[in-house]
Amino acid sequence: MPKVAVIMGSYSDIGVVKPCIDILKDFGIEVDARVISAHRTPDAAHEYAASADANGVEVIICAAGKAAHLGGVIAAYTPLPVIGLPVKSSTMDGLDSLLSIVQMPGGIPVATVAINGGLNAGLLAVQILAVKYPQLKDKMVKYKSELARKISDDDKKLQEELGL
Amino acid sequence: MPKVAVIMGSYSDIGVVKPCIDILKDFGIEVDARVISAHRTPDAAHEYAASADANGVEVIICAAGKAAHLGGVIAAYTPLPVIGLPVKSSTMDGLDSLLSIVQMPGGIPVATVAINGGLNAGLLAVQILAVKYPQLKDKMVKYKSELARKISDDDKKLQEELGL
Amino acid sequence: MPKVAVIMGSYSDIGVVKPCIDILKDFGIEVDARVISAHRTPDAAHEYAASADANGVEVIICAAGKAAHLGGVIAAYTPLPVIGLPVKSSTMDGLDSLLSIVQMPGGIPVATVAINGGLNAGLLAVQILAVKYPQLKDKMVKYKSELARKISDDDKKLQEELGL
Amino acid sequence: MPKVAVIMGSYSDIGVVKPCIDILKDFGIEVDARVISAHRTPDAAHEYAASADANGVEVIICAAGKAAHLGGVIAAYTPLPVIGLPVKSSTMDGLDSLLSIVQMPGGIPVATVAINGGLNAGLLAVQILAVKYPQLKDKMVKYKSELARKISDDDKKLQEELGL
Amino acid sequence: MPKVAVIMGSYSDIGVVKPCIDILKDFGIEVDARVISAHRTPDAAHEYAASADANGVEVIICAAGKAAHLGGVIAAYTPLPVIGLPVKSSTMDGLDSLLSIVQMPGGIPVATVAINGGLNAGLLAVQILAVKYPQLKDKMVKYKSELARKISDDDKKLQEELGL
Amino acid sequence: MPKVAVIMGSYSDIGVVKPCIDILKDFGIEVDARVISAHRTPDAAHEYAASADANGVEVIICAAGKAAHLGGVIAAYTPLPVIGLPVKSSTMDGLDSLLSIVQMPGGIPVATVAINGGLNAGLLAVQILAVKYPQLKDKMVKYKSELARKISDDDKKLQEELGL
Amino acid sequence: MPKVAVIMGSYSDIGVVKPCIDILKDFGIEVDARVISAHRTPDAAHEYAASADANGVEVIICAAGKAAHLGGVIAAYTPLPVIGLPVKSSTMDGLDSLLSIVQMPGGIPVATVAINGGLNAGLLAVQILAVKYPQLKDKMVKYKSELARKISDDDKKLQEELGL
Amino acid sequence: MPKVAVIMGSYSDIGVVKPCIDILKDFGIEVDARVISAHRTPDAAHEYAASADANGVEVIICAAGKAAHLGGVIAAYTPLPVIGLPVKSSTMDGLDSLLSIVQMPGGIPVATVAINGGLNAGLLAVQILAVKYPQLKDKMVKYKSELARKISDDDKKLQEELGL
Repeated sequence: MPKVAVIMGSYSDIGVVKPCIDILKDFGIEVDARVISAHRTPDAAHEYAASADANGVEVIICAAGKAAHLGGVIAAYTPLPVIGLPVKSSTMDGLDSLLSIVQMPGGIPVATVAINGGLNAGLLAVQILAVKYPQLKDKMVKYKSELARKISDDDKKLQEELGL
Repeated sequence: MPKVAVIMGSYSDIGVVKPCIDILKDFGIEVDARVISAHRTPDAAHEYAASADANGVEVIICAAGKAAHLGGVIAAYTPLPVIGLPVKSSTMDGLDSLLSIVQMPGGIPVATVAINGGLNAGLLAVQILAVKYPQLKDKMVKYKSELARKISDDDKKLQEELGL
Repeated sequence: MPKVAVIMGSYSDIGVVKPCIDILKDFGIEVDARVISAHRTPDAAHEYAASADANGVEVIICAAGKAAHLGGVIAAYTPLPVIGLPVKSSTMDGLDSLLSIVQMPGGIPVATVAINGGLNAGLLAVQILAVKYPQLKDKMVKYKSELARKISDDDKKLQEELGL
Repeated sequence: MPKVAVIMGSYSDIGVVKPCIDILKDFGIEVDARVISAHRTPDAAHEYAASADANGVEVIICAAGKAAHLGGVIAAYTPLPVIGLPVKSSTMDGLDSLLSIVQMPGGIPVATVAINGGLNAGLLAVQILAVKYPQLKDKMVKYKSELARKISDDDKKLQEELGL
Repeated sequence: MPKVAVIMGSYSDIGVVKPCIDILKDFGIEVDARVISAHRTPDAAHEYAASADANGVEVIICAAGKAAHLGGVIAAYTPLPVIGLPVKSSTMDGLDSLLSIVQMPGGIPVATVAINGGLNAGLLAVQILAVKYPQLKDKMVKYKSELARKISDDDKKLQEELGL
Repeated sequence: MPKVAVIMGSYSDIGVVKPCIDILKDFGIEVDARVISAHRTPDAAHEYAASADANGVEVIICAAGKAAHLGGVIAAYTPLPVIGLPVKSSTMDGLDSLLSIVQMPGGIPVATVAINGGLNAGLLAVQILAVKYPQLKDKMVKYKSELARKISDDDKKLQEELGL
Repeated sequence: MPKVAVIMGSYSDIGVVKPCIDILKDFGIEVDARVISAHRTPDAAHEYAASADANGVEVIICAAGKAAHLGGVIAAYTPLPVIGLPVKSSTMDGLDSLLSIVQMPGGIPVATVAINGGLNAGLLAVQILAVKYPQLKDKMVKYKSELARKISDDDKKLQEELGL
Repeated sequence: MPKVAVIMGSYSDIGVVKPCIDILKDFGIEVDARVISAHRTPDAAHEYAASADANGVEVIICAAGKAAHLGGVIAAYTPLPVIGLPVKSSTMDGLDSLLSIVQMPGGIPVATVAINGGLNAGLLAVQILAVKYPQLKDKMVKYKSELARKISDDDKKLQEELGL
């Protein structure tokens, strides 16, 4: 069973992170969810990142807001792919979080998804794991079919409502 | 030999994309570099994306500027992980490219790297493949050591120059 | 009876799109309202766009938010004029939607209206159709007179309220 | 022969507007190119807009920079579709021009294209006219095929250069 | 008695404009408050601006939101000083209104105050009139003393509350 | 002869300020040009502002860049109208200067013109003085006619060049 | 007992400033909290800043919103370190306050913290004072340990809730 | 002799950092200039920060661009005051660097100066040290007098040039 770490910089990010954890579980992936702060518990961040590979983690998702350094700090200590999930805070509408995560300097990438895009952070982890685990790729194909079906249903519902 | 597709929306993006292709080759990865436009050759985009998995491609990198739809369009047709590389154009300093790529709606993520971050797009693809291919993970560890060594060398150089 | 397609990327955009549909009907234009997602139902988008001209559609309006690719994807497959309606989402105040739609690269324009500007998207479609249908131009002239009258009424109301 | 007005707010915008004029001529459209300023020659703007329809103009393109009011001012006086072309000036990277043009209030739309997007302003006018003139729609289909062919050529060139 | 025109582009701007009207009246200035739209009643705007000087108006204040052209359109037709008051609308947090008003091209200035800064628009008009009317300058000096006194009172209140 | 103070926060702003001084002189206005820094010579700023009215200055223009406090600091010490001229510096494209000047809190307005808009700062001062000095209003009317004539000339030139 | 001045430009900033005052008191620092406006009580600002050093103040914190000049104005009159605390106002999401404070020209720095970052403004003052007062450095080390402990507690809480 | 650490995230930042080092030396402060990357040499960053206090460093200045995590990472490991110097990179005009540094979450402040504000980073360090070292406060007072003198000289030069 593949394992993904989901780290949030603050417990208050849980609302944004929950859909990420849920979708990973839906795909049968083991989730190690943690609250670790790049600034308040830097040793924990270091230790977690440096040992993640040995502990069987294959992808790390980092959710943080404002000057969101968590993804970069974790990525500094591991060769694993790190996904950055920018959390919108009470000022700057998420732009600070986004730029702090995505604009990583050459050498240490962080794979960034949309502001508050918890679901997509989880799905990206699935897609990465699916490179190795064929059954996940099959599930992802089904998931996308299901997405398409829902849009088709909405399409029909709209036309009924509008009497078209 | 693992294979990565590197698609650019316009031939003029080659300057930003070249470091991406080069680093992938340095890691011994086969590169399929293509010019395909989401808007001008949509059928080629559809066809490429829909058959990429079957053709042995394991990760797709999409570089585009302005209203940069390439990553989203490719991601719509494949379960493979798609990396988005925003290219700075002559107006808006790359913000348009970045937002067009990173702000994907729920269901279809695009793993976004920094504006003009060709090197990091390539390295992220390596990290994703390293989940499956252990030898790439070893190389990535070495690559990061080399990065660290260069910074240490710069550190010494600086102190010599400043006479510290 | 001229026909306009109004496509929204998500059913949740209906609040922004409703004034667009209503104004088109007010002008006696047939509306084909659809939920089609560039990313979740790309085949439906392709098919709809490629056959719209043959199906009698003369203008296509595309409403979408965030990384709003719908307009560009539809425009890629049709010679018809495509109007882009940026929908404000929960982050970035609509700037992401606007730039994703308006900053189209050379060759494939999308006629963009204001963020959440559903009414104007509809009126722009009317103006485009009025190039061909003289009765629509007459109606548009009347519509603009009516707009002016309302402003004049507001002007009088203000002066009464203020006792001027 | 269909006629399009191309108005620029300042003679210095000619560099951005030239590709617009050229593409219109390539499509066999008569162009009435003018320098008219919403602020410096408001009477000329008023007069031009109010008589454009009677003078046989079918679409009006307005190019302007900074607080770019030209499109709105022209649109106020005509039922014709008005295309707004934001010109990047020496500060604010075109964002001021874009927002001044695209964020029109309800009732008076301006069909906005990308910052400095002269070519697309012209092509959008062609697409609008093609609703009425079938031969323009045929030419537009051919134009898009030609765009696709150039991308395919670039694709081949890239692969040769890279030795793929 | 000096006269100031206060024009708003939409009746819905009244909340922002009210403090402007009130402060003018407090200073004993005659106010001509109007709803005139640059885009929906352009003839009224033209007429009002062109005759304002002859009608005894000495300063014109223009409040508008989004693509806020009102100030520029009025300024085009009068030698009087025009004050622009940007109104925040439901998207873009007022940045569109601000840039549309302040970034006027060379030759036609609009004196811009803060977003939603109705009070300051009125005070600026007073200061302009005070160049001509000495009694207004005296009142302005007193007004500023009163402002200072209020801050001093708040200062004392704060220290009492904090027990300093 | 009316007098205007033109204060720049740094000698390096002279390029942006020169057109302001020149236009004022063209209108026959006495100019007191000064380099005074809100931060480096705050006493000079205080002293100048507090005595300007008594010294016969009727309008004060303040040019500054970055965290541009000069206008606000001067306005704090005088009842005269203060015009703020935002100077673009080497970062942030002038947005910092603009917001620092225009977003003044209630009570102390600064009449803001476009970024690097030296000419308009001067013209606004003329318009303010013209409220008091009728001959300046006449000159302003002529100036605007001249502006219109230049646009008309450019219009003719354009049409000749394009062979229209 | 070390002393810190906490100045706010308006009494309405108290909500943002309160955590700053509280943390300073928690560290046993004397606080002189004041309402002083750079624009409405400039003399008080001048006087306070010029005498702060002689009055035993060692660090000055300035909280202000919009065109936030308070920090710069205070810094102009004192050699003491000045901390700027940008307050988010009702428009522009705090960007105006931030840029007005942080972008100070060469020679007069203002140490800027996050928008609405009252707590951090206080902690920064503590860290500055801790350079001189060793007991504050010890308290700061303990404070950081406590921060880390809270994150660890949250981490445990999260894992219990998720049943990990 | 007081000691300040000046750390840059990349040797290429030297142009922005040099004025910082120079001004510190001018004030007789010992400088430990280093190239340490938060992402490429995280262990060096950790080690340096954790031992800085014991090694006699009293203030740490961190210069970095893009997703500039250096200041936050250093601040996480030390009770010393940390000054953040945002370096403008080739995209986003320094906004990414600024937000990544200034928007630190509660608990771990970074004292941020202007984008590319190397001189001010150094001066802020001097002001912080001057809390402890009275001779530095005297020098700072002289430095500010000298700044004022230069502005006065520029003021005279301007008036001579303009023949005032």
